[in-house]
Order: sequence, then C-alpha cells, then structure tokens
Amino acid sequence: MTDALPVFIGPEPLPWLCDAVVRGGGRQTPLSDAQAVVWFGFPYNFPALPSGVRWVQLPFAGIEPWLEAGLLPVEAGDAGAPGEGRLWTNGSGVYAETVAEHALTMLLSGVRGLTTAAGRATWSPEEVGPAVGTLRGTTVGIVGAGGIGRALIPMIRALGAEIIAINRSGRPVQIDGQQPIEAIPVDLLDDTLPRCDHLVLSAPGTEATRNLLGAKQLALLRPHSWIVNVGRGTLIDTDALTRALSRGDLGGAGLDVTEPEPLPDGHPLWGLPNVLVTPHVANPPQQIPALLSVRIEENVRRFREGHELIGVINPQLGY
Amino acid sequence: MTDALPVFIGPEPLPWLCDAVVRGGGRQTPLSDAQAVVWFGFPYNFPALPSGVRWVQLPFAGIEPWLEAGLLPVEAGDAGAPGEGRLWTNGSGVYAETVAEHALTMLLSGVRGLTTAAGRATWSPEEVGPAVGTLRGTTVGIVGAGGIGRALIPMIRALGAEIIAINRSGRPVQIDGQQPIEAIPVDLLDDTLPRCDHLVLSAPGTEATRNLLGAKQLALLRPHSWIVNVGRGTLIDTDALTRALSRGDLGGAGLDVTEPEPLPDGHPLWGLPNVLVTPHVANPPQQIPALLSVRIEENVRRFREGHELIGVINPQLGY
Repeated sequence: MTDALPVFIGPEPLPWLCDAVVRGGGRQTPLSDAQAVVWFGFPYNFPALPSGVRWVQLPFAGIEPWLEAGLLPVEAGDAGAPGEGRLWTNGSGVYAETVAEHALTMLLSGVRGLTTAAGRATWSPEEVGPAVGTLRGTTVGIVGAGGIGRALIPMIRALGAEIIAINRSGRPVQIDGQQPIEAIPVDLLDDTLPRCDHLVLSAPGTEATRNLLGAKQLALLRPHSWIVNVGRGTLIDTDALTRALSRGDLGGAGLDVTEPEPLPDGHPLWGLPNVLVTPHVANPPQQIPALLSVRIEENVRRFREGHELIGVINPQLGY
Repeated sequence: MTDALPVFIGPEPLPWLCDAVVRGGGRQTPLSDAQAVVWFGFPYNFPALPSGVRWVQLPFAGIEPWLEAGLLPVEAGDAGAPGEGRLWTNGSGVYAETVAEHALTMLLSGVRGLTTAAGRATWSPEEVGPAVGTLRGTTVGIVGAGGIGRALIPMIRALGAEIIAINRSGRPVQIDGQQPIEAIPVDLLDDTLPRCDHLVLSAPGTEATRNLLGAKQLALLRPHSWIVNVGRGTLIDTDALTRALSRGDLGGAGLDVTEPEPLPDGHPLWGLPNVLVTPHVANPPQQIPALLSVRIEENVRRFREGHELIGVINPQLGY
C-alpha cells in the first residue's frame, strides 16, 4: 500500500472516529487536503466539499434529511464507483443486529403478554396467562429485507417461527448457511398479509413506502397480530393504526418509530395498553461507536484498495 | 402390535387426552383394568393404584407436591424399567421450548430497557436510550441444563451471546448440529458468576438447589446483570434479591416463579421498577394440550413397544 488516505473527520474529530480511520489505513487531515470525509453528524453544518473529496461516509442508514437538504447527487449515476465522480456511503447495515434484536424484543414482549403483565402489583395468572402466546409455529412477515430484516431472520427462526420476507423484488432472501427465505414483492402485500400472524417493518422511509400499512392493510391482519415498526414511522398510517388497536382488531403494536415523531404528549397511542413505544432507541447512542468503527475501518481499507464500498447510496431509491 | 394398551385417564377423560392415548396405541379403560395411568391433575385426588398399573404419566415437570404427598416411590430403583415394578414419568421437557421462549423474552425485555420504557406517556430518548443494552457479545449463564436450558441455548446463540451452562455434572452440553456448550459443575457456581453478564435459572426446585443464589452469589454479579428465573422460586433467596435490586447492585430480575408463590400483595418486589413478574405462566394453560399430547402419544407408543420412556422420574434427585 501507498501513503495513508487523507480523511477529513467531522464535525468533531472524535478519538474513536480517528482510531477507526487509522486502523483502516487513513489519517486525519484538514478538509482542503482530504480525499474522503467521515461525517458523524447532521446535514445542517455539512461543509461545501472541495473537488478532491471523492468519497463521503455518512453515519446512519436513513438519508431523508440529506436528500431534503439537497446534499446528495440526484442521479444514481452520479454516485458512481471509486474514481468516477464522488461516492456517498451510508451506515446501512451497521446497526442491523442491534435494531433487529430490539424488534425481536418488542415482538416477543407483545406476543408473550408482558404488556399485560407489566405494572401489576398482584399475582393474577387468570388475567395474564391467557395473554401469553408463542412465536413458535407462527408466520412472521418481515417488510424490508435489508440489513435489519436479514439480521432478524436467524433470530426468529431460532424461535421456531416461519418467515415471509416482503421486499421490492420478490427475490428469495439467501443467508449464508441457511435455507432461502420465501420473498413476496411488496406489490402483493395485500395478498400476503392474511398469511402473516405478525409483522415487522424494517423498510426505509421513502415516498414508495409511505402509508404502506393503511386501514385496508391493517384490516387484513388478525386480532392476535402484533406489528413491530423499527423502520420509519411513515410506513404506517398512524390514525388507522390507532383506530385498529383501540377496537381490538390487532394484538398490539411495538413502535420504536412513529409518525409524527416524536410522538406528542397526549397522543392516543400513549394510552393504549397493547402499545409498546420506545423513543427511536433501537439503535441506542452508546452502542454506536463500537459498531460504526468497524464499518469506517472496513470502508477506508476498501477505498484505499480500490474495492467496492459497503453501503453505497442510491439517491433515486432513497436509501 | 397386539391389543391397545388399557389406560386410565384422570381425573377427567378430556377429549384431547383420550385422542393422544388412542394415537399412541392405547384405549381408555376404568382404573381397575388399567395397565397405565395418564393423570392431568394434582396429587390430592390421585387414586390408590391397583397392582396392574405399571406406568403413571404425570403432566408437569415439577414433582415436589407428589413427593410431599408420599405418592412416588422413595428409592430410585423402585421406578425401574418397564416390566420391573411401576414406572413414573413426568412432563419434563414437554414445555421446554415455550418456557425457554418466555425466559428469553424476559431477559431481552430487561436488557433492552423495555422495563424503563414501559408506562411512559412522553417521548424521552434521553432517559430510555441509556437503558437499552444488547445481549450480543455478552455471556449468559444458564443454571440447569435440562429441557428448558437446552431449548434456550440456540435462541441465545442466535442473538450473538456466549453461554455457560451450570449443571450438576459439569459435562459439556451437546445439542444436535451445534458446537458443544461449556458446562461448569454447580459446586463451582461462585467461581463462575463473575464471568456471567446475565443469568437464567431453569433448574428444578430440590433441597440441593434451595437458595442457590443467596446474598453472596448475588454480590458476584454486576450492576448490569439481569437474572431470569423460570425454574422454581426457591432457587433464589428472595430477601437477598430484593435488597440487591433495591440497592441497584443488579440490572434487574425477570421472575416467573417466586418464593413465596404466589408473591403476596404488598411484597417489596412488586414496587421495584427493574423487576418484571409474570405469575407462573411461562407455560401457559392454553398451550398445554397441544404440547402434552405429543408426549403422551409418544410414551404410550414406547410403553407398548417396550422402549424406554421419556421423562422417567428419579425420586432421589427430586426430578
């Protein structure tokens, strides 16, 4: 290898970011000398890039605010490959396992009646027992078979449930060393929902996925069905969900993301006993450095070696 | 095969019990004609057995009340093999997977901060986020490597945690198609606890396991450690646990079994925010028929064919 890759690290050159860059074969430089930017922050103070910057690493998977700020190239072709214009990568997949673990936790808590048991101060098996279900033998639909969805598959399989992946292409999901997972194209969602006992949403928030679950789709699920959303709040029509939950048409919902977000005080979802809300913490801040460091190190190494980077953004698809 | 095995089914000949007996090659008879008894009930109205009864199938794993009622043979040898006296079998392992799923649910709920998130009515990531941990990369000690412990192992492995089994023998636990699990004899529990991030108790309640976790053992765990008990309440010194939890010496406790049980109203455990209590419903009543039917059918078939039964009780060990 040749010289270390000059990388601008912003908005603050946090020690763990610098360590990851160095481990991958880079070194911290001022922006004017940089060939790459590692950005651990928001778009509002993102700097104007000199032409020498050929790659930008963003910290998270969601790129809606970057698109809205007009910072990303509009055409997919503009993203290009190393050496062809400027490449943008996001944190897609970096936090997949911890978010998947959170989704599983909310799903299990709901299905096994922990929301019914919580907050009691008296031993009441007659009331809690009937609420205890099992994932074993059920079918779980996973909407979005990206990093989170793929990480969730072996976890759910280990509990004896079947999985249907619902993705754009309908191509079966192949995971190393495992049986391929049946996949249904999202266009056929309505035909697929009646086959699902439960649903986990881990799709990105795009115009194409807005209100993917509306009143019609919610009505295709069952009174024991739990819906877990760790994707984006916009995937669900919140009013329709609130109505369905209030009427007892669904088992419940575990929501780490909401629309609107933050969920305002006084929103009816806060008051429903079969709703579990975590405030967008499925990827908690304290776990980020260890997880993102691995990706930064790997992508710095790949960029230096001219290999394909992980998480190249496709601005037209919105992720 | 010869004639159907004559089986007395009590205390009530419930249709699903009768169906299971018939599928295994048996038929329902009065007690006086029975060679076997399938009992789905408690000891208090268990009948005096005619000498023709050579095998009794009990419904659950726990046999403490049967021992206390003096109904089981005292010497292990009395249990014997088919044809040598009378054989007693229990429901050990029948409910292992659903109980293991419950244990995992309580462990995940605690580790991922759902107990901190529950019951809020305002979006508070600053308070909930720091409470969200992960099982990935941690070490989970499983005390008792019987059916429940063994069922739990692949579930926990799928989440990226290491496992230490703590059992009587210290023999590694071998599960089909998986790497053997390190096991530590329970005599060395105190040396092993500092290696465990979390602990799941799935051991039987016997004189040997009473207060297995006392003040000394609890002090060997860590401020982030969760303890889940799906075995028997007597495994833990409740007063010592309550003190440790109140002081913040532990992450929390998920208890499906307690000592005393039922946990009385007003008990301090009810008031602790880092305690999750489910009222002995890890094996919920509505799941029993489907699960127990499989075991009854299998054991009736084995008894007719002279094969070893599943779940033969060893009265001296107490399970």
